Amino acid sequence: MSVRIAVPLPKAYRLLNHGPTVLVSSAHAGRRNVMAAAWSMPLDFDPPKVAVVIDKATLTRELVEASGEFVLNVPSRRQAALTLAVGTQSGREVDKFEKLMRSGLPGDGAGETASMVGAPLIGGCLAWLECRVIAEPHNQQTYDLFLAEVLAAWADPDVFSNGRWHFPDEQRRSIHYLAGGSFFATGDSFEA
Amino acid sequence: MSVRIAVPLPKAYRLLNHGPTVLVSSAHAGRRNVMAAAWSMPLDFDPPKVAVVIDKATLTRELVEASGEFVLNVPSRRQAALTLAVGTQSGREVDKFEKLMRSGLPGDGAGETASMVGAPLIGGCLAWLECRVIAEPHNQQTYDLFLAEVLAAWADPDVFSNGRWHFPDEQRRSIHYLAGGSFFATGDSFEA
Repeated sequence: MSVRIAVPLPKAYRLLNHGPTVLVSSAHAGRRNVMAAAWSMPLDFDPPKVAVVIDKATLTRELVEASGEFVLNVPSRRQAALTLAVGTQSGREVDKFEKLMRSGLPGDGAGETASMVGAPLIGGCLAWLECRVIAEPHNQQTYDLFLAEVLAAWADPDVFSNGRWHFPDEQRRSIHYLAGGSFFATGDSFEA
Repeated sequence: MSVRIAVPLPKAYRLLNHGPTVLVSSAHAGRRNVMAAAWSMPLDFDPPKVAVVIDKATLTRELVEASGEFVLNVPSRRQAALTLAVGTQSGREVDKFEKLMRSGLPGDGAGETASMVGAPLIGGCLAWLECRVIAEPHNQQTYDLFLAEVLAAWADPDVFSNGRWHFPDEQRRSIHYLAGGSFFATGDSFEA
């Protein structure tokens, strides 16, 4: 199981503030799924809220609407191929946890039990935000836009602690999707 | 004046897909302002839409609500101090264009005329998205959340062309705000 420490809720926005691409995991009535999402952002500090776009065609959409819950997982660079795979294949056609979620590293991509929601935490990620949907049917229907409150947040202490990211090596950095299989790694930290 | 080329609208999302921090510029009735926003994201491909959080306390909020328009400007690393300054001081107290928007490089931070909106394009930035607000009063009032359609998009061809970012040096990279004056630069590009 991934090592993780609780992130105080007023600091949870810092897990997403720099705009990493995330994995959205979901579960309902014995089914579970995971997809990639470049379009997410913090929406409020305390209580923390997030916004994420979830297309109508996805199995994730069905599971999130049925359960009212999801997890935003922040994948690492070593999970980039996995992120691309779950972002391009549909959970309607393949059980992604069985077929796609193995990077070759122990525990990477496994679904682990969350504390507040039924959706799984994805093993080997850098950080996790357990979220409950704030029902906004107009946004969901018109814009595929989901707003949610963050109920619990976690991070791998090797990469995030005391409210700060401190990436220990090139493979354990967050990633930012562009298009066509291209990503950027999160780069140098600096003070303005 | 900044060199810029038009970005075809179906590719405009790529200016924001990797989650950079942006400057929100606005104007109404002879007043103009600029603020920093870490909380923005693409919302749709074509026609392109964006989402951005704009706090009620800001002058930007007043100008955006009055004009129904804004520009999202993607600043470069060399504009990080300027980004921090306009993100921490209020346009109600200081004319930011007069006092804060000078990095020392010619044209950096100057307000330039946009093509479709009254809000200025910020000189020296890497890319620009001219946006018209989609009126959603409930989102605006409850979540400080603004949705908008992108009417025109531009990029410095030294850093973005043919739908791709290609940062030429360390100072001309996009930036990602964390907190407390700390940023990340956009890092290595790689294929998954």
